Amino acid sequence: MDRAQRIADSAKKDAVVIANGGMPFLDPVFWYVTEQRSGSFEGSFAVISKDGSLDVVTNELEGAAAKSGKGNVHIFRDRKERMTILAELLKGCRRIGVSGRAITRNTSEYIKKITDAKLFDVSDKMADVVSVKDGQEITEIRKACSISSKAAKKIPEFLREGITEKEVAWLIDSSMRNDNGSGNAFETISAFGENSAEPHWRPSERTLKKGDTALFDFGSKYGMYCSDLTRTVFFGEPDDILKRAYDVVLKAQEAGIKEMLCGAPAKNADIAARKIIDKSEFKGRFIHSFGHGVGMNAHEGPSISRVSKDILKEGMVVTAEPGIYIPGIGGIRIEDTVLITKDGAEPLTIFDKDLTVI
Amino acid sequence: MDRAQRIADSAKKDAVVIANGGMPFLDPVFWYVTEQRSGSFEGSFAVISKDGSLDVVTNELEGAAAKSGKGNVHIFRDRKERMTILAELLKGCRRIGVSGRAITRNTSEYIKKITDAKLFDVSDKMADVVSVKDGQEITEIRKACSISSKAAKKIPEFLREGITEKEVAWLIDSSMRNDNGSGNAFETISAFGENSAEPHWRPSERTLKKGDTALFDFGSKYGMYCSDLTRTVFFGEPDDILKRAYDVVLKAQEAGIKEMLCGAPAKNADIAARKIIDKSEFKGRFIHSFGHGVGMNAHEGPSISRVSKDILKEGMVVTAEPGIYIPGIGGIRIEDTVLITKDGAEPLTIFDKDLTVI
Repeated sequence: MDRAQRIADSAKKDAVVIANGGMPFLDPVFWYVTEQRSGSFEGSFAVISKDGSLDVVTNELEGAAAKSGKGNVHIFRDRKERMTILAELLKGCRRIGVSGRAITRNTSEYIKKITDAKLFDVSDKMADVVSVKDGQEITEIRKACSISSKAAKKIPEFLREGITEKEVAWLIDSSMRNDNGSGNAFETISAFGENSAEPHWRPSERTLKKGDTALFDFGSKYGMYCSDLTRTVFFGEPDDILKRAYDVVLKAQEAGIKEMLCGAPAKNADIAARKIIDKSEFKGRFIHSFGHGVGMNAHEGPSISRVSKDILKEGMVVTAEPGIYIPGIGGIRIEDTVLITKDGAEPLTIFDKDLTVI
Repeated sequence: MDRAQRIADSAKKDAVVIANGGMPFLDPVFWYVTEQRSGSFEGSFAVISKDGSLDVVTNELEGAAAKSGKGNVHIFRDRKERMTILAELLKGCRRIGVSGRAITRNTSEYIKKITDAKLFDVSDKMADVVSVKDGQEITEIRKACSISSKAAKKIPEFLREGITEKEVAWLIDSSMRNDNGSGNAFETISAFGENSAEPHWRPSERTLKKGDTALFDFGSKYGMYCSDLTRTVFFGEPDDILKRAYDVVLKAQEAGIKEMLCGAPAKNADIAARKIIDKSEFKGRFIHSFGHGVGMNAHEGPSISRVSKDILKEGMVVTAEPGIYIPGIGGIRIEDTVLITKDGAEPLTIFDKDLTVI
């Protein structure tokens, strides 16, 4: 079924408005419904009517791009024209759905001002629609995952004593771009030794030395779609505690992935993985969720946390990424992007998960 | 003066709340006030009190990173704890400032729910504060501009018949990363021939052929700071109309930059450049603003458009980027990042602006 139609059917409102703010506050759902491949569409709107029809309201800069996507295109030259066009499209609407997680406060106030409608947050419903990928989307995500997997495989070749975190991040990013990736899905995390105990570390000038853990969390885009994987290796023999942590994380990942079944509560995977970590000496050191959806956004629905109410469905693409973090010593994380199929979770990222000492 | 203090003084509210949503809805002002170098801080808050003191509310994942920045750090383990901490920090506040251009509707509703305060949009005031850069910021932006300028200089070497837009984008990005850039300020625009008539074109598999314009709009980050430049060259002799357009754009840029004086209305630069284009045969073909501020965001205040109410101040960093777009034929844009000084606009990006035929 048409993407705009699916959102209309799910939101059950007179209209759904998808709004881009200024960079970086762009909503990937705009590209999802318009099936756009280009443009930045700052200050532009996609309006989905109750019947599933799609209107795109944008400025002259994006005019040509807009015509290459779906929807009836309306071009405005200034703010007044934008207001007139939007007010006309939303005329008579009493209940308008917006993505409260993506739309800014000002844009939401703007819509209220130019209509008589009441606004409703339909972000959960929109996230549900977007989280189930169609064939074309899965093809692109597979490609993005394959590009990232190739880089993961090369990591042992990239490491040498004295290289910096930034330099390895650059080698990974280059590898992905050389393999036809269209850019980073997010800023590559490259963390050595004690820095790897910070899950969202940004690469620094820290140099690699014997005994370090080396953790890399990265993903290429292919077209508009993301991939996400984490590989942790050891540069020289590490502290025994880190080897034990690696073993526990790997078992936790396997246990979580086993629970990723069509129709199962998403939280089951988190609970299964957490149980393994919490019954080990590393109790309490798995300080984030087991996973999240991946699509045009590197982080999207479903949520795979202890408290998630989401249900796994065929066609969802999610991460499986348990970790153990020991402050001052190091962290271990192993992450795959997987596709939920009728037969369970199929890993789309492929790399050597055996404990690797370089 | 302390950054948080400057925001408090400008906003004149009981507190200012800077909120990060989930990626990509992160607010660079969070990093600005905390002087953070790391972390992603999804779902985190910076709270600036009336007296300029700063509190940072974040989760365990970001705990170590948060401690390396400014502010009193409060760590929450779950949503309930986050709510308790925030409610305590905002207790007694009746007027809270938020950035309505950055905060999402849901987060803004959340703050209303946990306090008795009224929310005010202080995004213009915050943008004013952020738009005037301090010495450390200018040093980093200079470095980012120098990295981009080096790539701009290499463009003629990158071009050969049959190379794709994507391949040249990759060569530019590689050059910037090799020169110690920390990543792209935005997705590089690489557009050949008719594609260059779309200001926000995304690189495709289109190959370069004789007679094409070749337009490249890109910028490196250095640390957290952006640069932004556009170079347009010709691959073989182009249509005469494109050469004439190049000449007009260059004159328009020079005229605009001359108006970029301390204390001058920002709109003067746009008006001066537009006058030159509109009195030429290319009337009406300059379909965007003359420029915008550059900082941690690739696009920020001040606005340099015909209708801007902003005043240029010493320490602002802005772009000067007139363009002419001829649908089906090609586009010309010439863009520098410049620093507003007491003595006028100092270009921070440096590349050959003479009409270049390769």
